[in-house]
Amino acid sequence: MALRQAHRRARVADASIDEPSAELWGPEFAEVAQRLLSSAVLCFARNGFHATTTRDLTAGVGLSPGALYVHFSTKEDVLFAITRVGHERALAGLGDDTGELDPAEQLAELVRRFVAWHARHHTVARICQYELSGLEPGHFEQVQHLRQQINQVFRGAVARGVHAGVFDVPDVHRTARVIISLGVDLVRWYRLDGPDSPEALADEYAALALRMVLARPGG
Amino acid sequence: MALRQAHRRARVADASIDEPSAELWGPEFAEVAQRLLSSAVLCFARNGFHATTTRDLTAGVGLSPGALYVHFSTKEDVLFAITRVGHERALAGLGDDTGELDPAEQLAELVRRFVAWHARHHTVARICQYELSGLEPGHFEQVQHLRQQINQVFRGAVARGVHAGVFDVPDVHRTARVIISLGVDLVRWYRLDGPDSPEALADEYAALALRMVLARPGG
Repeated sequence: MALRQAHRRARVADASIDEPSAELWGPEFAEVAQRLLSSAVLCFARNGFHATTTRDLTAGVGLSPGALYVHFSTKEDVLFAITRVGHERALAGLGDDTGELDPAEQLAELVRRFVAWHARHHTVARICQYELSGLEPGHFEQVQHLRQQINQVFRGAVARGVHAGVFDVPDVHRTARVIISLGVDLVRWYRLDGPDSPEALADEYAALALRMVLARPGG
Repeated sequence: MALRQAHRRARVADASIDEPSAELWGPEFAEVAQRLLSSAVLCFARNGFHATTTRDLTAGVGLSPGALYVHFSTKEDVLFAITRVGHERALAGLGDDTGELDPAEQLAELVRRFVAWHARHHTVARICQYELSGLEPGHFEQVQHLRQQINQVFRGAVARGVHAGVFDVPDVHRTARVIISLGVDLVRWYRLDGPDSPEALADEYAALALRMVLARPGG
């Protein structure tokens, strides 16, 4: 047991695991359900979905194992709630108010919002990226639909700049994928107590994304 | 059981899980040990390190559970072998023959090699990125040392271009981290039967990396 605790303390992933804020889940969930979701995020981030038991989830909030079933039908249902809400919030965070900006400023603003969201909610976002394989097919399809909407926002912004002659990229889809990768990969290493604030990272990644897409004078 | 199988078939991660080639492990390991390592890569990629049992590892190669201990002392020892060798190969893949190239061509070549390696060995690389939290502290430190060497290669190449006045970046360390992110994030989604060959992806990412760092005429 002592060994196991020492091992746990030294786990690298733990250093970048932060408890999600309760507000993330929203009024769709009762207060106990919100606490169960936050507990599940920590358990899944530490040990993975498959190695987490329903007992782990309820123990994390000081409840008996049966309390889970008042709010969720299965452990998979908890994973679905986390990944659905996580993707919904990430998509909503992109906003629908950037279409009037010029193409370069629009893309920069979308990258800023996407990166800042992923930094701020990096532990939830990590579950959204790494644990999708635990979803049942029907749930996976619903989350995949949200992912496609996020992709579409970035593809649209890149395509708009290309059409305007401001961007020059070999392939719109691949370029959008790379820009999304910048935001997604930070969930692997980001920590709120590290040197980079979500906003500083957002500004930096927006500038790098623009460098990748902007047409060069003289072609 | 039928449900569980349907679930397994539909798992998103499975679509991008490929068995590693036996040559990856090298003569350091006996043939049975190599097969156990490849089996472990598949198990860890499908279910995570914590949810994999030593029985899963040996069953994957048709051996009895006890056979593991002829070659590895623990399941963690298997994870250490995979992540150590994976990082050693990724580092070796960068080569030590790029220092005579001009800075832009050196960075492009390093990105090409890093991206192509991660695409070709994407399932092993995924374990190397996502399962480090399963390592014991001493093993983690050894792997971390290899990761720092990889970081150092990219930082050195970016810094060299900055000193030569060819690159213009706000921060060498962060820029190197973003370039590494491009290669690392593809292990999340890459599949060998997809539309992009490792080489095509390598060329594309090298071009995008250069766009991020090259100084603009006129500043």
